[in-house]
Amino acid sequence: MPERILIIGGGFGGLACAQELGGTDCSVTVIDRRNHNLFQPLLYQVATAALSPADIAEPIRKTLGRHRNINMIMAEVVGIDTDRQQVLLDGGERVDYDRLVIATGSEYNYFGKDGWRANAPGMKTIHEARQIRQRLLSSFEKAERAHDEQEKRNLLTYVVIGGGPTGVEIAGAISELGRFMINRDFRHIQPDQFKVILIEAGPRILAAFPEKLIDYARHYLEKIGVEVRTGERVLDVTSDGVTVGSEFIRTGCIVWGAGVKASPAHRWLGLDAVPGGRIPVDDQLRVVGHQNIFALGDTADFKGTDGKPLPGLAQVAKQQGIYLGRYLKGGDANPAGFAFRNRGNTAVIGRNAAIFDFGKWTLKGRTAWLLWAFVHVYLLINFEKRILVSIQWIWRYLTRQRSARLIEEGSIRETDVTASSIIYSVTGPGGDR
Amino acid sequence: MPERILIIGGGFGGLACAQELGGTDCSVTVIDRRNHNLFQPLLYQVATAALSPADIAEPIRKTLGRHRNINMIMAEVVGIDTDRQQVLLDGGERVDYDRLVIATGSEYNYFGKDGWRANAPGMKTIHEARQIRQRLLSSFEKAERAHDEQEKRNLLTYVVIGGGPTGVEIAGAISELGRFMINRDFRHIQPDQFKVILIEAGPRILAAFPEKLIDYARHYLEKIGVEVRTGERVLDVTSDGVTVGSEFIRTGCIVWGAGVKASPAHRWLGLDAVPGGRIPVDDQLRVVGHQNIFALGDTADFKGTDGKPLPGLAQVAKQQGIYLGRYLKGGDANPAGFAFRNRGNTAVIGRNAAIFDFGKWTLKGRTAWLLWAFVHVYLLINFEKRILVSIQWIWRYLTRQRSARLIEEGSIRETDVTASSIIYSVTGPGGDR
Repeated sequence: MPERILIIGGGFGGLACAQELGGTDCSVTVIDRRNHNLFQPLLYQVATAALSPADIAEPIRKTLGRHRNINMIMAEVVGIDTDRQQVLLDGGERVDYDRLVIATGSEYNYFGKDGWRANAPGMKTIHEARQIRQRLLSSFEKAERAHDEQEKRNLLTYVVIGGGPTGVEIAGAISELGRFMINRDFRHIQPDQFKVILIEAGPRILAAFPEKLIDYARHYLEKIGVEVRTGERVLDVTSDGVTVGSEFIRTGCIVWGAGVKASPAHRWLGLDAVPGGRIPVDDQLRVVGHQNIFALGDTADFKGTDGKPLPGLAQVAKQQGIYLGRYLKGGDANPAGFAFRNRGNTAVIGRNAAIFDFGKWTLKGRTAWLLWAFVHVYLLINFEKRILVSIQWIWRYLTRQRSARLIEEGSIRETDVTASSIIYSVTGPGGDR
Repeated sequence: MPERILIIGGGFGGLACAQELGGTDCSVTVIDRRNHNLFQPLLYQVATAALSPADIAEPIRKTLGRHRNINMIMAEVVGIDTDRQQVLLDGGERVDYDRLVIATGSEYNYFGKDGWRANAPGMKTIHEARQIRQRLLSSFEKAERAHDEQEKRNLLTYVVIGGGPTGVEIAGAISELGRFMINRDFRHIQPDQFKVILIEAGPRILAAFPEKLIDYARHYLEKIGVEVRTGERVLDVTSDGVTVGSEFIRTGCIVWGAGVKASPAHRWLGLDAVPGGRIPVDDQLRVVGHQNIFALGDTADFKGTDGKPLPGLAQVAKQQGIYLGRYLKGGDANPAGFAFRNRGNTAVIGRNAAIFDFGKWTLKGRTAWLLWAFVHVYLLINFEKRILVSIQWIWRYLTRQRSARLIEEGSIRETDVTASSIIYSVTGPGGDR
């Protein structure tokens, strides 16, 4: 009987690992609760109506389907029985494995306030990106119809919580989208009624980057109209606003980008006390204490050469997935263990503005932005997506138009079941049938 | 003060009328409950994962934004006060008009069984197309996981109600999508477990077409595995199946394409007794009995040269919109009244197969299919969409792959609030967080 390798999670790491194992003698099964792999670095462009979900998401079956030794199950994992070597699914099924790979990624950390989630979606799933897009576009429509000056200002205030790359990217994109729409497409709202606020609890935005890139980014954000507030802590998030210190900011849309935590996979192994939820692994990505279980990417606590855990980046997961795939098939994996090769850390701030940190040298401005665009198109999963995204980007660069400005009828009222405020209900200003 | 022209509805007709009035001295306002104009003829491709919603939908503001004399309000109209010359909106506002254009289109006719709607969405809105896509793709994932042979068969049975062009198009597309996915991407379902049933109450499918085209279409549908049943009446639609005669057909997804009725705009004018809900108009599209109110497209009861009402086609609405726009600005509209020029009636059945009826002559097969593709790309609203759709079609033709096979996490459980059956709940087999 062929060796059964089970991979939980079809993200960058799990998929890279599975692809390495394609066409081998192993019997590989990938389990994911979604049917698609999502290119999260571009999800903020879906949220700001620049791209469609399908441009950055690929069905896992489509990616793996041609390998007859790979099987996929769309299911939720609820536990691992390490004694019997079985993974437990939501439907009660058990799936046997000889070796197991845990690649379940990370999720947003609401610091114990899970009630905030519905009011401030993050940037992890297509559903969240669509929610943000709906709220963003609807708030403009409502502001256009509003008669009260203060109400217009409230609706046109956007709060982004968290000053990491995701927060910076979405704040910049909202600011550019809003200014373009107000100038061209709306008649009853003015640019000075529109405001984007980026809130960071720490002393600096983009804390992982060198000082001079941070200064450039902050300066650029302020130039395109983003109010950057550092050292301010969010105390409460409701459906119509955010409490920062003693101030309550009324807003048309809140976006969460404030820190992630590992997925709860560590609990399946009884590792409840692991700090940050990351599973300790050895040099071969083997889970400490388990000969036949491996973890990678955001799920694994793998220390870099500086003794700190590797950052939660797609490139880390992908490199580890390839390494592990080769290791599992007994190929040319380095017996000295996995070593991360830093491909550079980047964030895009706006049109013609991005930053790159390659460790020894840095890049900023238009050159960095062009490099960012090329790299991200290249990283897309296949030729078709690369062409489609390239065309939309070139078109947008030339016209400043965004092609996916859709408020989908019906969906807001029904999906925002937890948000009771009329602010987010499209039933008021129309759109529902 | 400039003349105030109010247009209700931003579909083909309303938008064409507004565009004619762009740059004139009139003050034009377009009211729509959605923010976008939807190219409905291609909506079945969104439902079958071939295109993204944004590929065939364009924000109305984007289309009209450059004309400074045109204003748009996203709102639901609840009535018309003809005495005061005002339109009433859902928020309680009233909008004044000097002349009014009603272009509110049509909606699906569930023959009084509005409870069927949630179980059998039609092909009128992006929301419905996404619902169908979710159910279709989810049923394959569930069938792949199911252990019971009969359950697999039930999940892989698809019922399309209504044998008009929409029903034929979606039945053909489901059949092609399903066969491709089963052969390439799934491991535990077989082609013979998969079935598409097209049900038509009348004696023939595609009743508006000449006999020989109908024969060709029916033959082709059967060749690609669609079971065509004519003369059978649907008696009930539940969340897990359809009753036809004495038979209950269990199914993974039901699509409604059985006849439309005019939108309820006639009630705003007190015309409750109008047959079919279409508003009677004169040669100039003026509503009978109202000097300053006009109706067009699916909303208007305009008789063709054969004495029958014009069909509910995009080309009719568009031609009437252009005519009315010119008439309203006092331009070169024909004082003899509107005359419809038939551009041909078409339906696509599958890869390399379509039919065209130009009245005097007809076309079928690959040539018709190529013509259909060219015409539909040409009819898309702008250059960007044309390029994006062309690339996706060429790519699909070469690879048979469909790029938008996304099951969006979270959305099924929340949107299908009315469907209680576990068949449609993704919470079971995963996908939800």
